[in-house]
Amino acid sequence: MGIEDALRKQIEAIVILTDNEYDLVLRHFEAKNYKKHQYVVQAGSSAPYDHFVSKGLLKSSFTDEDGKEHIIQFAMEDWWISDPQAYHNRLDATLNIDCLENTQALAISIDNREKLCVECQKMEYFFLKKTTAGYIALQKRILSLMSQNSEDRYRLFKELYPDLVNRLPKKLIASYLGISRETLSRLSI
Amino acid sequence: MGIEDALRKQIEAIVILTDNEYDLVLRHFEAKNYKKHQYVVQAGSSAPYDHFVSKGLLKSSFTDEDGKEHIIQFAMEDWWISDPQAYHNRLDATLNIDCLENTQALAISIDNREKLCVECQKMEYFFLKKTTAGYIALQKRILSLMSQNSEDRYRLFKELYPDLVNRLPKKLIASYLGISRETLSRLSI
Repeated sequence: MGIEDALRKQIEAIVILTDNEYDLVLRHFEAKNYKKHQYVVQAGSSAPYDHFVSKGLLKSSFTDEDGKEHIIQFAMEDWWISDPQAYHNRLDATLNIDCLENTQALAISIDNREKLCVECQKMEYFFLKKTTAGYIALQKRILSLMSQNSEDRYRLFKELYPDLVNRLPKKLIASYLGISRETLSRLSI
Repeated sequence: MGIEDALRKQIEAIVILTDNEYDLVLRHFEAKNYKKHQYVVQAGSSAPYDHFVSKGLLKSSFTDEDGKEHIIQFAMEDWWISDPQAYHNRLDATLNIDCLENTQALAISIDNREKLCVECQKMEYFFLKKTTAGYIALQKRILSLMSQNSEDRYRLFKELYPDLVNRLPKKLIASYLGISRETLSRLSI
């Protein structure tokens, strides 16, 4: 399946588009290629795109005052990734987004996204459904961070994202789960 | 300001409505009155409404297998509260929502919300903007839980919600922040 078909498939799981409507959608995106280790967004700089990942793997993270990195999100094929606060509010980024593998993505600017929602109401409905699903997922993650011990958090991560576990270094999974690498190594035995 | 004016003010911070459009909006809501200690949503039962709070204070929480309560969210005047997973996906609730004060709210069912978005595209835009802002707030909370110590979390809570601090028992703030009541008492001195 080509990069453009994957996006259509995701949209059409929520709302069916005509060929003309999908052509309109695609005209609002730009194809991007990034190399492994490349930064897509850097804290302190602008964060002009939301990315639909068609191939590859990225992470977004926050580096605190002590230089410790806290991983917010991973994104592989069919996932979206941005610094949402910077993107939606047109602010400088507070997060970093970098590529863990060579990556191909379809990128949409906030201006193009807003324009697309006006020109095609189905896309506004699509973004509302995706954002709502994202909100629900974040609330589950908060609950997991508050109520689960390290072992249960790791088990839930493996259940939710079986495809990710083998593509990620253990230390990144540990950072995402908010547990030490030593604890994760013990759990992984 | 009356209960209905507060909702219009919030909507019009994002999109301006005609009087006719706002009448249409209100016809999709029901006025609700709840007593202090009353449950609005109970885990295991249906969760048919999203609530715009016009007066009062509520909390949503998850009770784990050991009977420990983890607070997800508070909601006071002008805030919205639901069990989002149950509401949007028409599932039984996993959260409890109960009133910490006598509460007045405008409640909208998921069917009425979807109908309203079709009948008035401005409201779809409003809900998209509110959901996006909620997503950004949850991501910040995850970052706070992962990267901040108890003292910094409590300071951030007081900065973000100065009006809430004095209305809430300390033990509920501690539960929301994921810290022990003893730790919070030490910080509050």
